[in-house]
Amino acid sequence: MPSRSNIAVIGASGYSGAEIVSLLLGHPAAQLTTLMTANQERRDNEPQKYSDALPQFYRLCDLEIEPLDLDELQKRAIAITFLATPNEISHELVPKLLERRLRVIDLSGSYRLKQSALYARWYGFEHQFPRLLESAVYGLTEIYRDLVCKAQLLANPGCYATSALLPLIPLQQRGLIDAKVDIVCDSKSGVSGAGKAPSPNTHFSEVTESFKAYSVMKHRHAPEIWQELGNPNLIFTPHLLPIHRGILSTIYVKVRRSVNELMISECLQEAYGDKPFIRLYTHGTLPEVKFVAHTNFCDIGWKFDSDRSNLILVSAIDNLGKGAAGQAVQNMNVMLEVEERAGLL
Amino acid sequence: MPSRSNIAVIGASGYSGAEIVSLLLGHPAAQLTTLMTANQERRDNEPQKYSDALPQFYRLCDLEIEPLDLDELQKRAIAITFLATPNEISHELVPKLLERRLRVIDLSGSYRLKQSALYARWYGFEHQFPRLLESAVYGLTEIYRDLVCKAQLLANPGCYATSALLPLIPLQQRGLIDAKVDIVCDSKSGVSGAGKAPSPNTHFSEVTESFKAYSVMKHRHAPEIWQELGNPNLIFTPHLLPIHRGILSTIYVKVRRSVNELMISECLQEAYGDKPFIRLYTHGTLPEVKFVAHTNFCDIGWKFDSDRSNLILVSAIDNLGKGAAGQAVQNMNVMLEVEERAGLL
Amino acid sequence: MPSRSNIAVIGASGYSGAEIVSLLLGHPAAQLTTLMTANQERRDNEPQKYSDALPQFYRLCDLEIEPLDLDELQKRAIAITFLATPNEISHELVPKLLERRLRVIDLSGSYRLKQSALYARWYGFEHQFPRLLESAVYGLTEIYRDLVCKAQLLANPGCYATSALLPLIPLQQRGLIDAKVDIVCDSKSGVSGAGKAPSPNTHFSEVTESFKAYSVMKHRHAPEIWQELGNPNLIFTPHLLPIHRGILSTIYVKVRRSVNELMISECLQEAYGDKPFIRLYTHGTLPEVKFVAHTNFCDIGWKFDSDRSNLILVSAIDNLGKGAAGQAVQNMNVMLEVEERAGLL
Amino acid sequence: MPSRSNIAVIGASGYSGAEIVSLLLGHPAAQLTTLMTANQERRDNEPQKYSDALPQFYRLCDLEIEPLDLDELQKRAIAITFLATPNEISHELVPKLLERRLRVIDLSGSYRLKQSALYARWYGFEHQFPRLLESAVYGLTEIYRDLVCKAQLLANPGCYATSALLPLIPLQQRGLIDAKVDIVCDSKSGVSGAGKAPSPNTHFSEVTESFKAYSVMKHRHAPEIWQELGNPNLIFTPHLLPIHRGILSTIYVKVRRSVNELMISECLQEAYGDKPFIRLYTHGTLPEVKFVAHTNFCDIGWKFDSDRSNLILVSAIDNLGKGAAGQAVQNMNVMLEVEERAGLL
Repeated sequence: MPSRSNIAVIGASGYSGAEIVSLLLGHPAAQLTTLMTANQERRDNEPQKYSDALPQFYRLCDLEIEPLDLDELQKRAIAITFLATPNEISHELVPKLLERRLRVIDLSGSYRLKQSALYARWYGFEHQFPRLLESAVYGLTEIYRDLVCKAQLLANPGCYATSALLPLIPLQQRGLIDAKVDIVCDSKSGVSGAGKAPSPNTHFSEVTESFKAYSVMKHRHAPEIWQELGNPNLIFTPHLLPIHRGILSTIYVKVRRSVNELMISECLQEAYGDKPFIRLYTHGTLPEVKFVAHTNFCDIGWKFDSDRSNLILVSAIDNLGKGAAGQAVQNMNVMLEVEERAGLL
Repeated sequence: MPSRSNIAVIGASGYSGAEIVSLLLGHPAAQLTTLMTANQERRDNEPQKYSDALPQFYRLCDLEIEPLDLDELQKRAIAITFLATPNEISHELVPKLLERRLRVIDLSGSYRLKQSALYARWYGFEHQFPRLLESAVYGLTEIYRDLVCKAQLLANPGCYATSALLPLIPLQQRGLIDAKVDIVCDSKSGVSGAGKAPSPNTHFSEVTESFKAYSVMKHRHAPEIWQELGNPNLIFTPHLLPIHRGILSTIYVKVRRSVNELMISECLQEAYGDKPFIRLYTHGTLPEVKFVAHTNFCDIGWKFDSDRSNLILVSAIDNLGKGAAGQAVQNMNVMLEVEERAGLL
Repeated sequence: MPSRSNIAVIGASGYSGAEIVSLLLGHPAAQLTTLMTANQERRDNEPQKYSDALPQFYRLCDLEIEPLDLDELQKRAIAITFLATPNEISHELVPKLLERRLRVIDLSGSYRLKQSALYARWYGFEHQFPRLLESAVYGLTEIYRDLVCKAQLLANPGCYATSALLPLIPLQQRGLIDAKVDIVCDSKSGVSGAGKAPSPNTHFSEVTESFKAYSVMKHRHAPEIWQELGNPNLIFTPHLLPIHRGILSTIYVKVRRSVNELMISECLQEAYGDKPFIRLYTHGTLPEVKFVAHTNFCDIGWKFDSDRSNLILVSAIDNLGKGAAGQAVQNMNVMLEVEERAGLL
Repeated sequence: MPSRSNIAVIGASGYSGAEIVSLLLGHPAAQLTTLMTANQERRDNEPQKYSDALPQFYRLCDLEIEPLDLDELQKRAIAITFLATPNEISHELVPKLLERRLRVIDLSGSYRLKQSALYARWYGFEHQFPRLLESAVYGLTEIYRDLVCKAQLLANPGCYATSALLPLIPLQQRGLIDAKVDIVCDSKSGVSGAGKAPSPNTHFSEVTESFKAYSVMKHRHAPEIWQELGNPNLIFTPHLLPIHRGILSTIYVKVRRSVNELMISECLQEAYGDKPFIRLYTHGTLPEVKFVAHTNFCDIGWKFDSDRSNLILVSAIDNLGKGAAGQAVQNMNVMLEVEERAGLL
């Protein structure tokens, strides 16, 4: 076996971080060697074994969680550092990591938007590093593969954004969409998308047997979708599903009058027919959350009403898979120039 | 206490039927005296106590389930007969009940559509009684109260239709909606909406931790919505939530350019401000399924983007409450000319 | 209608408190007139409408939540004050309420144990009012009805304790149990039993699709069960179910060699045959959580292996019903000398 | 890469069968080459692609489901044939497969019990092949590894039995258990244990937010546990959890008076310290279902009350993992003499 690249995860105790750890356990080309925490409180405490905090990893990953130490990352020749940290922490850590010539995959939203001015409104903080926003690669792997290869800083896409953009980008780029009519993206996500911190909104008794829309007209994935789609005429509404993991988006598109079913099918086929993690549903069935749970797939299906030029797209991903850790590992594979599917299929 | 009216339920072992029984238990003006089954198989068997079939009713309702006997209903002076039976059974039973001058509240879809020709396409059977379709009252209580009073045959609305129509009808009737842009109604329902018959689609392991769209562009509640809204430019998509009861609909409306927030608010307030079972959310929060579970409320909230004239309405009902049994009992109250809220609040 | 007694609830924003409010809404003999909070933080804030905090009560209960004011309770001639407050708060408030001659139903555990010394070990605080422990009535209504009538201070039983004690007390009192063999009470509860405060243990993603035992050999309902059963040879193990409400206890009892099936059946029948909220399952089926959800019933079933003298009892309650608010209202009814079932059936 | 052994699965559309397919996808030493159905109805129909029936396998396993053909299995040099078929089908197929010198791993219960007479009572059919019962190897890998190696017919253990036997066998064999007191094994399982066939008992709406005991004193895993434990003084009660996959068993054991905590710990450590799929919880935490979901682990924890010699063991497995498909693949690994963890970690 060839030697494997050293990998570090900062923030491995959250859901996305733990999913990265899980995917790296059996990875043929990458070896998780370092877990660090940027949480000040934890840094001051006794070191803790990862599997004491997350017993499901007992005997699978018994590394210690070390306090953050950037020099140490450099010394250990870490090939890729995953940041599974809150927005503010990532915002501050990324420049320090890049200074030390460490390649970073950031799972937060802190380096996804190109216009720094948007951060104050959508994220609640002033972005201090507009130059890095320019150089950051938006890691929608199927769309930006060539840039991902060489990325120093990879901004891993938001989960909702991934589920909206993958079905829409080919149709938008090939000019199939009627620009005069708003696209409606009605998305539904499992609770892990809200992270691991307990709150009234994620209390079991408040979520089970219920369902709600939230952050209507003000969710921070909206500007990310508008930017990458190159089309701001899209209404995005997130909802909270009483499930742990998974996103399903139902997307309503008015296509141009000249567009027929075959054109839609060919457009998507051409874009994704050879992509390992996009599955097109061509036989009338539609994606469901359970078909993609615990995978890195984005499944895409559609129904078309040619009389009215109405196209309904349905996409499904695992928000912790293709919506976060899965896509991050896929990007790592591309950055390390190993098989794109390594550790994921 | 004044004497209570005698009530019969045919098909009380399903979810809607059982919910009617439950609501009638404590009703001050109606007394459940008769449970009958139209199911041939059950009719041939030994009579069964209702609470043997549904142990939650033990000591609450220990009536026997009798085989269907229309003459007997007449003899017992049944004031209202609820039909909680499949479409085909209701289709056949309704004329026989009306012949005997029995007043009927039918929870199936068999008498909701005014155009008999639609039944072949949407319900899969030829409707035999077009005259009855004309005389049937569509029981959206808040809209048709005057007709409900005198109804002989009341067609209780579909659950999805109720959640779509109540927020939309006032806006449509007062001309606030931009007629050139399709309305999108993205609805999500609990599993009880699919009835009690076991199937692969409702198997616990297939539903839990999953979510899907179904009957896309072909659900039979669509024509019911188009008919009652008087607007066919509406796309309706149902989804299956991993919960027992509840519907939430997210409805995307383009309003006319001249419409402002106050006009929307006043329109809904005028229509529903005095209605006991509609709750308008005027303070920025939005309805959630858990707020209406086990009630007869339809909760309505909205967000408005005046720059783009985009209105997002969110409505929530309990599909077994306002979406079926609750509204049926509300209609019964109106038909019996008792307090509309009796037994429901 | 005769005038209704004035009722106050302190701590109505938690699950048990909200359930009391809900049960009082339609109560024929009691009127909820006062909601107060003992939470210092909330007391200093602007007064809040109850239905703003809990939107499900919008239009049903729009009372204001007032800061705690004991004099005010006296002035308003409150007949019963419910305390749905944490243990430490109840511990401190009870004597002050009693001083003002207010009758109290305390849903916490602070006045359930007769031996004050037990509080340090099981509750983590020193009990300051041993005399009140003596005079407090343990509110297992079916067992202590005569004392409940006249109670000034009623200690409402714990949810697990209720599910364990109701099936066991008659068998223990009539001497059917083999004293040499430990009773095993394996109990499973929904998450609402843990209260409404968010925590990692009640985070949706940590609970759904999982199950665990907790507080093994050290849950504070154990001494309550031992005390009331008069038998410490009972092992009690609580488990966390991924549901909102409900408890099911599976109880393993070795009966004395001379005991036969009929004796068990008669013993339970004699104790509970005329009790409105105990349902004995005599036909081979067993209780399930869904049969008692949203009710005040305690359902009891059993299987007996006469060869080995093994009796397995299964009891089911709604932990917020008979396990908390339901039983509290039942006790209120008895204390007010109105129909025991008022507002509950 | 060395050549991989050819593997067949009969009955791959059920939950256990699909889990075997899933585990074989990435297996380094085994290649799934054949899917067959023994279902007469399906055999007469058009062949179907596996991923059409189970869309989650689209692009992962697109084999055809062929009608059962034993000669074909022989021709294709199938090294191991998994039977994930109903009891009656396995009962009939096993001798035919053995005749053709095919090695069989049967996931049904048809060859687990040594005494053929037990089948009439517990399984409802007369066993026709008592000789095969003698030669069948009970595939609790950790206990019978030496026999598993050479097995022609491997009877894969029941899910409940696995969760009960693994913690108990070492304690029983080393004589730590007080033989005069019954062991109580209170087990809780997810719904997938009941299989994929829809039924009222597994309907989503009947399971969610509920919980029940079932088959009390008559579940067919009881005789399997008694046989393998060599101790019939064990009461086994299964319960249905509202989750898809996972079993947790809470086991109450009275140990002999001379037994102390260290002896228990050493007994389990000695038995399982070097076993890759048993994780002993030695630090006070207890196993939970979520720690073992989607793994082949059996996690074992315990609490001991030395004053009363009461030992409470808690074991957790994934019923489709170590409780079925995982253990079956583990047994396959041993039978093929490859690394025991291949494809499982």
